[in-house]
Amino acid sequence: MPLVRISLVKGKSPAYIRSIGDGVHRALVETYRVPVDDRFQLVQQHERTDFHYDPDFLGVHRTDEVVFIHIVASRTRDTATKQVFYRAVVDNLSADPGLRPEDVFIVISPNDREDWSFGNGLASYVSDDLNVPQ
Amino acid sequence: MPLVRISLVKGKSPAYIRSIGDGVHRALVETYRVPVDDRFQLVQQHERTDFHYDPDFLGVHRTDEVVFIHIVASRTRDTATKQVFYRAVVDNLSADPGLRPEDVFIVISPNDREDWSFGNGLASYVSDDLNVPQ
Amino acid sequence: MPLVRISLVKGKSPAYIRSIGDGVHRALVETYRVPVDDRFQLVQQHERTDFHYDPDFLGVHRTDEVVFIHIVASRTRDTATKQVFYRAVVDNLSADPGLRPEDVFIVISPNDREDWSFGNGLASYVSDDLNVPQ
Repeated sequence: MPLVRISLVKGKSPAYIRSIGDGVHRALVETYRVPVDDRFQLVQQHERTDFHYDPDFLGVHRTDEVVFIHIVASRTRDTATKQVFYRAVVDNLSADPGLRPEDVFIVISPNDREDWSFGNGLASYVSDDLNVPQ
Repeated sequence: MPLVRISLVKGKSPAYIRSIGDGVHRALVETYRVPVDDRFQLVQQHERTDFHYDPDFLGVHRTDEVVFIHIVASRTRDTATKQVFYRAVVDNLSADPGLRPEDVFIVISPNDREDWSFGNGLASYVSDDLNVPQ
Repeated sequence: MPLVRISLVKGKSPAYIRSIGDGVHRALVETYRVPVDDRFQLVQQHERTDFHYDPDFLGVHRTDEVVFIHIVASRTRDTATKQVFYRAVVDNLSADPGLRPEDVFIVISPNDREDWSFGNGLASYVSDDLNVPQ
């Protein structure tokens, strides 16, 4: 169910960007109970002047490689699950494409199960809509 | 009050994109109690490699024509209203520009009435601000 | 903690855009209890045909200079704080880069404290994660 927006400074290869998308999705599958085929991701590549980050906030030393990962997902996960998820994203992106852990910024925007329509005009997670023949 | 973000793969004409915006807005007006002049929409056209969707999740068969419609709106509508709204968007976009129902992906991000300022530095839906002369 | 998305029509200078980012951030610091080094902003410049606003909704007369400011922030501020914040943004952007108050559109998307990871895979505002050595 998540919609993932990945933002970074322009200039990376499609393979590099694909690795980021893969790593985020694998963390969602492994720790966030997201089905493996529930993958919807938008990448936004910005000019450096359109991309502002603080290089030291909270004592975390960021570089121009920083990636913002903004996830819209239903509010059905608890704090402990989110903590495990954040660690999994960083582990995956450290391994491939080799991001520094400090350069992984994640924010979650919670919504509700009735806020999703995955096609055909149905509220995909609302039971009476699930019963409608597609 | 909604802010609508429409994301699709690059390469469509302005008229095609305008039809999508028109159809989403008409559905908001007809089913979501949105005033006809309350239209604020941002379109984001992505390279194909920056736009990832699953072609089969939940048994819905999507193509590269898929459009993501992400709506920020106050949490004042119930589930039944959202169900009617999803159907209206699909009906409108099927008619014009001719989208397949499977290619219409909608997600709602709820916020609150005090979260909107439509100009002049006022909280547009908070009563004491409405009383301030503009 | 906020993530700020600033959207406007293409064609402004980096200095103009920087002034908008500066003014929004200063308002967050002055009225919203945001630390001065907690600045994370993404600017999205749109073609005019990809940027739709109503020129008169709620009697506010907007022009093509209109800027949409979309802020993801934890739901720890009350309505009065938001009212003061909206006014501060407009005051700052009127002074520099000289925006008309009618052309400042703000929307807030609230989330929760556990929804933020500012790097290193930690839930930055969750206490047991704060205790983990970095």
